[in-house]
Amino acid sequence: MKILVVNAGSSSLKYQLIDMNGEKMLAKGLCERIGVDGRITHKTADGREYSAETPMPDHTAAFDCLKYALVESDAKAVESLDEISAVGHRIVQGGAIFSESVVVDEKVVEEIEGLADLAPLHNKAHAQGIRACLESFGKDVPEVVVFDTAFHSTMPETSYLYALPYEYFEKYKIRRYGFHGTSHRYITQRYFELTGKEKEGSRIVTCHLGNGSSISAVKDGKCYDTSMGLTPLDGFMMGTRTGTLDPSVVTYIIEKENLGAKELSDLFNKKSGMLGVSGISSDNRDVEQAAKDGNKRAQLAITMQRYQITKFVGQYIAALGGTDAIIFTGGIGENGDELREYVAEHFGYMGVKIDLELNKKMIRGGEGLISTPDSSVAVYVIPTNEELMIARDTKAIVEKM
Amino acid sequence: MKILVVNAGSSSLKYQLIDMNGEKMLAKGLCERIGVDGRITHKTADGREYSAETPMPDHTAAFDCLKYALVESDAKAVESLDEISAVGHRIVQGGAIFSESVVVDEKVVEEIEGLADLAPLHNKAHAQGIRACLESFGKDVPEVVVFDTAFHSTMPETSYLYALPYEYFEKYKIRRYGFHGTSHRYITQRYFELTGKEKEGSRIVTCHLGNGSSISAVKDGKCYDTSMGLTPLDGFMMGTRTGTLDPSVVTYIIEKENLGAKELSDLFNKKSGMLGVSGISSDNRDVEQAAKDGNKRAQLAITMQRYQITKFVGQYIAALGGTDAIIFTGGIGENGDELREYVAEHFGYMGVKIDLELNKKMIRGGEGLISTPDSSVAVYVIPTNEELMIARDTKAIVEKM
Repeated sequence: MKILVVNAGSSSLKYQLIDMNGEKMLAKGLCERIGVDGRITHKTADGREYSAETPMPDHTAAFDCLKYALVESDAKAVESLDEISAVGHRIVQGGAIFSESVVVDEKVVEEIEGLADLAPLHNKAHAQGIRACLESFGKDVPEVVVFDTAFHSTMPETSYLYALPYEYFEKYKIRRYGFHGTSHRYITQRYFELTGKEKEGSRIVTCHLGNGSSISAVKDGKCYDTSMGLTPLDGFMMGTRTGTLDPSVVTYIIEKENLGAKELSDLFNKKSGMLGVSGISSDNRDVEQAAKDGNKRAQLAITMQRYQITKFVGQYIAALGGTDAIIFTGGIGENGDELREYVAEHFGYMGVKIDLELNKKMIRGGEGLISTPDSSVAVYVIPTNEELMIARDTKAIVEKM
Repeated sequence: MKILVVNAGSSSLKYQLIDMNGEKMLAKGLCERIGVDGRITHKTADGREYSAETPMPDHTAAFDCLKYALVESDAKAVESLDEISAVGHRIVQGGAIFSESVVVDEKVVEEIEGLADLAPLHNKAHAQGIRACLESFGKDVPEVVVFDTAFHSTMPETSYLYALPYEYFEKYKIRRYGFHGTSHRYITQRYFELTGKEKEGSRIVTCHLGNGSSISAVKDGKCYDTSMGLTPLDGFMMGTRTGTLDPSVVTYIIEKENLGAKELSDLFNKKSGMLGVSGISSDNRDVEQAAKDGNKRAQLAITMQRYQITKFVGQYIAALGGTDAIIFTGGIGENGDELREYVAEHFGYMGVKIDLELNKKMIRGGEGLISTPDSSVAVYVIPTNEELMIARDTKAIVEKM
């Protein structure tokens, strides 16, 4: 069974074709500048490439380009569209409605659109993507939606409620939802595969660290708490995001600069974090390089990032009453050996010990244990694979239809 | 040496007269409704009382009432004003200017007023209080100011900076200041007195839990990190305050309810926290009673409070790379044996163990160890005494004059 995994943004379409027989990626690509002009870059697992500047007035046109790339171009991955059994869509916000992946129907698309309020940048684009996909692939190809929030739907209310007047939860559904759930779920599953441990009674802390970052406390294999909240802005500092703040910081800035909600949102989401503190870049590689070259603010940003991550891991270990494992994933988690060393050192008091050589080598897709045999807590690097997780869900649901 | 300790609010004046010979409280009282009508309640250490409804058009009038109570009333504590050697004032916000207590002069009062921007509810009233005190007691009685923020001035920038664009720190001094410093400092000093340990190399977590609450990480006897931030709203849920939030929660509420900075500040500072979640009261005793009577939202509020405190203790243990002690103070910290049990249980994984019987008994002013002899971390209850701390600073400064 071959499954197309799609992540639709407002002007982009990221995709991956996965052969579930062996769970191998066959091809992946990106349609960009949808609604502006249009550009596709496409690559197969065996290294063939196709790219083109081609008009994409809307998402349907982008899907048509993608079909051409997959089936007709020199970098084609299948002989016929019929080989594609189903499409799985990544959806950021499932609100309190979706606690698991479901097959798409009109009601589902409407519900996703209805949640746009809670994820304005994402959900509208996702709904557009689904409709365009239905139009381009036809109703005979089943489509499944997989939610970033779903893994977190098991959180108890003591974890997900903010200490606002309760009416704000009832009236506006203001609560912690959590994001990156597909990634946290993937590495959680992979952890159990790798260790053969029982879910029941287990406690792990999963760190998805990338341009956007979140950390989760996972108990019995289910999410117990997570750092992202109402939106992916909550938690700790990220590439361009502040993480959690004293709400007075927000009102203070309102008073000083007379900013509206939209401008504040831009400030906290796009101009802060590593970029805001370092003044250099939102990309960890750039900031790390500048720090090594002696830039003080870059050094400050790097240390703040490591320190804040350490504090979040610490709070979740406390929340779980101890942990069996700490798992790193995401671009920074998978490649940040110095960050992992910093974090692990801070838990030396509880017997955490990593193998420094092993840790240094565990980069660029490496998967495995980086703690020493006598470490009280297992420390893992597990490269995430959200696309595969979406494809697995899609397969499971389609097979039951 | 007898020292008058004063905490001036916008319409109130709390005071305590302390005999530094033996550090005994001689009398304490409260002037209320200043600028409205006026009322004083006053009590001596030996149980005599004086109260009166008396006009207090301003703080100077309140100081005159206080003088009458102290020197002339049936509950007088001294024979003459000359016995009062100095006055110590509690000041909430010392900003980045004051890292320690100082003697009052005109420049100091102006600087305190200049920081009003960062603590609008407090610093203006403090400055009013100082000026009125100078007028009422005369310039010959030296006055000293003691700052809630001072203890936290040793934090490294990796602790005190928010991940905002760096200009917001440079331009507006937006950073974590921390509050309750006098209390955190008092229990830190007391911990070293009780244990005889060296400050160098020590690591402790101090929990000041009252209607307002904060937790600090203290390294080598100096503050390393603290939960309150730009304002006393930051951190975890309190009587009526939210603690830290996803900044998107703020912008979301702005969009939904079109609230301005002042209304938002009221919502987050006065209507949230235990009161907001429980819908019952901001007072822990009321909420605990309701929880015991079966009220679900009261139970929720109580568990959220304990859980959030646990997470903060956990993050500071990580920040310090382990801890020697966890210390509880403040109304809730000193009397909340169930809360302390909940927190300690969550650190059982690292060998924290409290003596349940001892813990139950350590309430209403009890001071001492509540952990078992084999606990990996010492857990203490130490009743705070901010007034004594202010008096000690005042004495030390006055003696050097």
